[in-house]
Amino acid sequence: MAEAKLKVGVVGGTGYTGVELLRLLSRHPGVELHAVTSREQAGRPVADLFQALRGRVGLAFTPPEPAVLAACDAVFFAAPNGTAMAMARGLLEAGVRIIDLAADFRLKDPAEWRHWYRMEHACPELLAEAVYGLPEINRTALRGARLVANPGCYPTSVQLGLLPLLEAGLVDRGRLIADTKSGVSGAGRKAEIGMLFGEAADNFKAYGVAGHRHWPEIRQGLAAVGGGGPVGLTFVPHLVPMIRGIHATLYAELSGAAEVDLQALYERRYSAEPFVDVMPAGSLPETRSVKGVNLCRIAVYRPMNQRTVVILSVIDNLVKGAAGQALQNFNIMHGFEEGLGLEDIALLP
Amino acid sequence: MAEAKLKVGVVGGTGYTGVELLRLLSRHPGVELHAVTSREQAGRPVADLFQALRGRVGLAFTPPEPAVLAACDAVFFAAPNGTAMAMARGLLEAGVRIIDLAADFRLKDPAEWRHWYRMEHACPELLAEAVYGLPEINRTALRGARLVANPGCYPTSVQLGLLPLLEAGLVDRGRLIADTKSGVSGAGRKAEIGMLFGEAADNFKAYGVAGHRHWPEIRQGLAAVGGGGPVGLTFVPHLVPMIRGIHATLYAELSGAAEVDLQALYERRYSAEPFVDVMPAGSLPETRSVKGVNLCRIAVYRPMNQRTVVILSVIDNLVKGAAGQALQNFNIMHGFEEGLGLEDIALLP
Amino acid sequence: MAEAKLKVGVVGGTGYTGVELLRLLSRHPGVELHAVTSREQAGRPVADLFQALRGRVGLAFTPPEPAVLAACDAVFFAAPNGTAMAMARGLLEAGVRIIDLAADFRLKDPAEWRHWYRMEHACPELLAEAVYGLPEINRTALRGARLVANPGCYPTSVQLGLLPLLEAGLVDRGRLIADTKSGVSGAGRKAEIGMLFGEAADNFKAYGVAGHRHWPEIRQGLAAVGGGGPVGLTFVPHLVPMIRGIHATLYAELSGAAEVDLQALYERRYSAEPFVDVMPAGSLPETRSVKGVNLCRIAVYRPMNQRTVVILSVIDNLVKGAAGQALQNFNIMHGFEEGLGLEDIALLP
Amino acid sequence: MAEAKLKVGVVGGTGYTGVELLRLLSRHPGVELHAVTSREQAGRPVADLFQALRGRVGLAFTPPEPAVLAACDAVFFAAPNGTAMAMARGLLEAGVRIIDLAADFRLKDPAEWRHWYRMEHACPELLAEAVYGLPEINRTALRGARLVANPGCYPTSVQLGLLPLLEAGLVDRGRLIADTKSGVSGAGRKAEIGMLFGEAADNFKAYGVAGHRHWPEIRQGLAAVGGGGPVGLTFVPHLVPMIRGIHATLYAELSGAAEVDLQALYERRYSAEPFVDVMPAGSLPETRSVKGVNLCRIAVYRPMNQRTVVILSVIDNLVKGAAGQALQNFNIMHGFEEGLGLEDIALLP
Repeated sequence: MAEAKLKVGVVGGTGYTGVELLRLLSRHPGVELHAVTSREQAGRPVADLFQALRGRVGLAFTPPEPAVLAACDAVFFAAPNGTAMAMARGLLEAGVRIIDLAADFRLKDPAEWRHWYRMEHACPELLAEAVYGLPEINRTALRGARLVANPGCYPTSVQLGLLPLLEAGLVDRGRLIADTKSGVSGAGRKAEIGMLFGEAADNFKAYGVAGHRHWPEIRQGLAAVGGGGPVGLTFVPHLVPMIRGIHATLYAELSGAAEVDLQALYERRYSAEPFVDVMPAGSLPETRSVKGVNLCRIAVYRPMNQRTVVILSVIDNLVKGAAGQALQNFNIMHGFEEGLGLEDIALLP
Repeated sequence: MAEAKLKVGVVGGTGYTGVELLRLLSRHPGVELHAVTSREQAGRPVADLFQALRGRVGLAFTPPEPAVLAACDAVFFAAPNGTAMAMARGLLEAGVRIIDLAADFRLKDPAEWRHWYRMEHACPELLAEAVYGLPEINRTALRGARLVANPGCYPTSVQLGLLPLLEAGLVDRGRLIADTKSGVSGAGRKAEIGMLFGEAADNFKAYGVAGHRHWPEIRQGLAAVGGGGPVGLTFVPHLVPMIRGIHATLYAELSGAAEVDLQALYERRYSAEPFVDVMPAGSLPETRSVKGVNLCRIAVYRPMNQRTVVILSVIDNLVKGAAGQALQNFNIMHGFEEGLGLEDIALLP
Repeated sequence: MAEAKLKVGVVGGTGYTGVELLRLLSRHPGVELHAVTSREQAGRPVADLFQALRGRVGLAFTPPEPAVLAACDAVFFAAPNGTAMAMARGLLEAGVRIIDLAADFRLKDPAEWRHWYRMEHACPELLAEAVYGLPEINRTALRGARLVANPGCYPTSVQLGLLPLLEAGLVDRGRLIADTKSGVSGAGRKAEIGMLFGEAADNFKAYGVAGHRHWPEIRQGLAAVGGGGPVGLTFVPHLVPMIRGIHATLYAELSGAAEVDLQALYERRYSAEPFVDVMPAGSLPETRSVKGVNLCRIAVYRPMNQRTVVILSVIDNLVKGAAGQALQNFNIMHGFEEGLGLEDIALLP
Repeated sequence: MAEAKLKVGVVGGTGYTGVELLRLLSRHPGVELHAVTSREQAGRPVADLFQALRGRVGLAFTPPEPAVLAACDAVFFAAPNGTAMAMARGLLEAGVRIIDLAADFRLKDPAEWRHWYRMEHACPELLAEAVYGLPEINRTALRGARLVANPGCYPTSVQLGLLPLLEAGLVDRGRLIADTKSGVSGAGRKAEIGMLFGEAADNFKAYGVAGHRHWPEIRQGLAAVGGGGPVGLTFVPHLVPMIRGIHATLYAELSGAAEVDLQALYERRYSAEPFVDVMPAGSLPETRSVKGVNLCRIAVYRPMNQRTVVILSVIDNLVKGAAGQALQNFNIMHGFEEGLGLEDIALLP
């Protein structure tokens, strides 16, 4: 661990992942916030926009100028897709490490990226180097990494939920179902009528059923485990009238004949993982229990002793699903203790 | 349709299905509310307990006395399981028609009933006569029926969602998945810590994963269609921080090779049904659009052109999932126009 | 009451007051919806935008063309401030009656209107003719009126709450306090970050403390009663994380020495009013009890027998505070029964 | 600051103030949790009941045995009224310091206590010694105190809001109005129908208008400042559909003729207070900005330049209004840094 604090920049400090990063970074003992960028709010004190940061973040927003960011040790991109890839080469050449919370470096295949994100990739030559920042799979590669693609929120909850089954080769890879539910903050801090309280409150609906960008990301991740090979995945996200939280309900079909102790399998797989909590058999993980917390809680079921396994997996979409995992990756990259700055306990109630 | 109004009794008028019945019955032109029972609140004006009924329901609660109920033309039981079966014989002998909104007459096999409801059935000889009150299947049997078992809320949404697929024999009956989400009113008007606003708000979780009483009810219903035969069903209910509403997300695997127009299949199946709305392709039904309304809205998907069909089905658990469907059944039983008293439009917003 | 249905137009059919009007008008037996306008959505079926209106409203949105509106018997303006005054002269000349749900005709003094609404008034000569549509004060003037200014939501709840005290001359007119709380639909169906679920949920705050446009409207209304004369009013609105509803908590100081039966005073004042419910002493009116309903419920207190009177007054901001009251005014203007189309009962729960 | 950790007990660890104490205490570097009591849950691991405390609190609940508590350095009572006074003498004699989060030691006059709490006080001789734990008034007395009465939630928000005005003698003491709004957690973790999500969500209402136990507490506190003397107070609490948070809207009438800079007055009064944030003029404090945080944010208004001053004051009822303030008092009593363990930043969003 370094003596001096690391200089950190946040590109896109006005969105929900950005401000969550600010909350976490402002209390991290190894970090000095150097710049928080926003074109629109440039010049305005951060704490003027976000009441909760009064007295905790002294900076004002600045425009996203490369020179300012190049003076950082690390830069988090909490900006729209396409932002990080436009600045990545220059910053890496300046010796700055990058953690992108958007999707620019998540998909390895630039053609697939173009298909789902409707943009040409600006630096496909960096895709191979970019480490997919799911520490439970890639911890070794993350140590010392220069460029990290922070996973999407749904992909984090779904992959952590399914990994042990696929690694152990216990289920039919061809028919996985992820029925996922997210709080509204997953849509970001954007003025959209559908996300108004008057529309989203006291309501429930699916969305993106025909196709969602997290589908190829999850498939890419799962295809790499358990011997490898493509997976069949049906992915249906839903919008829950709550602020934060993802609940993934995952269905897979046992392929073998053998009796298997799924509870033990999961406990073993994650026994050394500080940020995955395999709950006792029969538990019902609640999204509230991880709100504001960098943690994935998992419960394992085989209802009515049928062949369908049901996995329940909950995270906070903005923490283990975004800013918290980004900070966890930052800690690993820089040799800090992995959980530094990630000690919160969820509020009760 | 009768000239004089029918005398109607409601047993259990203090719960959520009971008070929803009162709201609907109080505006039904063919109904005269004769008695609303509650042991606990006996003597208290109904409108004193339920502010919204001030000036609309003039009755006071009475104890559930057989003589009073026997003077009714029809009695709705909106009381706990086991209540209707204890009074059914006597009332039927007195010529009273019965609609039970609880579970007493839903399962045809008394042994299965005992297993799931932990009670010996009090009148198994009536189970054969009882008509399962899903008009979209049993309309003919409902005409003139003396004893109706009103379906559970989840079973209504799941069966209406899956019926066309099973009737057409298009999917693997052995692996159906119902991932269902309900508002908190599904738990009834009972003082439980888990249903406090402080616990259920801004939260999401599954429950009853290991086994839920609606599982045998759905399986019984689905086993009877499409040529018959047992079905394999995984059923996982979840609690949504909203007051009313059920969203069932249903997964089934196409078994045949043929191309099939699922949208047309659903539209055809329900074209004559006044209370099932098959939405245009690509629609996302919202629970709010049926809040307070006796309607099931359905959308049909086949994501990424894979073999897994996804059906979205929404109802109001207290209306099409309980009191509204009960009134629909009442109308059919007594020869009223089927939609009488069921004309509400959901609030926007 | 007319034999034939009246042709009705709605200008601004995509906002919350507009769509609430559509819900109410579509079931009104004396109304034929002739046109629903929206520049932005012109050509799109209304029920395509508002799922809940599927099968209930068959029209598509049209541009707000004067010729189409001139063919109506009555036009409701549920559009932004400044819209109605721009079309009023022409429509009145064409024999169309107008009910403006915005603020154009609420203030009698064009200078005060300019000050608060930052626009020059387009037809000040119509201000004298415009009837302020609070039937509990102006019922006689509303009969046959050509131009009605539908009151604001807060002004409705505050004036109905304070009227009896001021009419009876019982309180100090110089120090009235209205601490008001509104659901988020009061802000309209506009994409604003502050009204996102992620911002407004699980939160409470005041707004407009320094000055709010409903302040002059309330003062104008109260100044006209109880012998007349200016009133001193402090008005503080708050935002509640609920969809609909206003709760006004009103404070006034008894000026006289005499003992007065406030409960009897209120019951007497509103005994003939179909849409004001003075609740029994000790009651606590809930906003939910009037949700979707054209009703103001009031409770009267004098806590600890001090000189400060506390009045609790609840309405649905979109019904008695907007569209419902507009329809009530429409009924009065055209000689329909006053409550026609306003028979809803609030949902429980 | 002591080298060794202090042994701390919590009596009543299953309620909302109790579990909030556990969240805070479990991260306090000077505290060793020695016992958490609950008769009902005795033997059950704390983290089994509260999912969020898994891995953070290792204790199981124990019965409230005096011997166990007597081994503590300090005991927090987060139990119902009447609990602390029954054990206070014994614990004090054993050298244990007591912080009561209930009401047993808040009122100085045992007759008034009896009147409002319907119990005879068990140890009136301790009332004089008990320090009312509002550090912004009583910091000196709290240093070394043995027995602290932690203030009520409403009294904290109202007193902090009004103190500067009364201390400066600027307003009419005889007519103060506190219109207060609280989230549902203020009612505690008790199974009550009125607090069900189905009842409290999407709703707003007043309660306790005729009389509330916090009224005498606030009056006692305010009577002691600004030269002293009784105050006239009207206090109306309301229930907000949110989990945590209090928003007090306070009204007072300027008595003098002089121009006074209220903003400067408040800033000066609280400039040295670490847990009171006087916001810039024109600010609108949000309850969410203090959720989970030991802080009172205040804004000062004089709307339309009238004589009525409006103060907005927000706290988290369970933190600055209960457990956080208790920990602040604990820190002061024991010579810890006042803000130790109270460093949280509210979540955004």
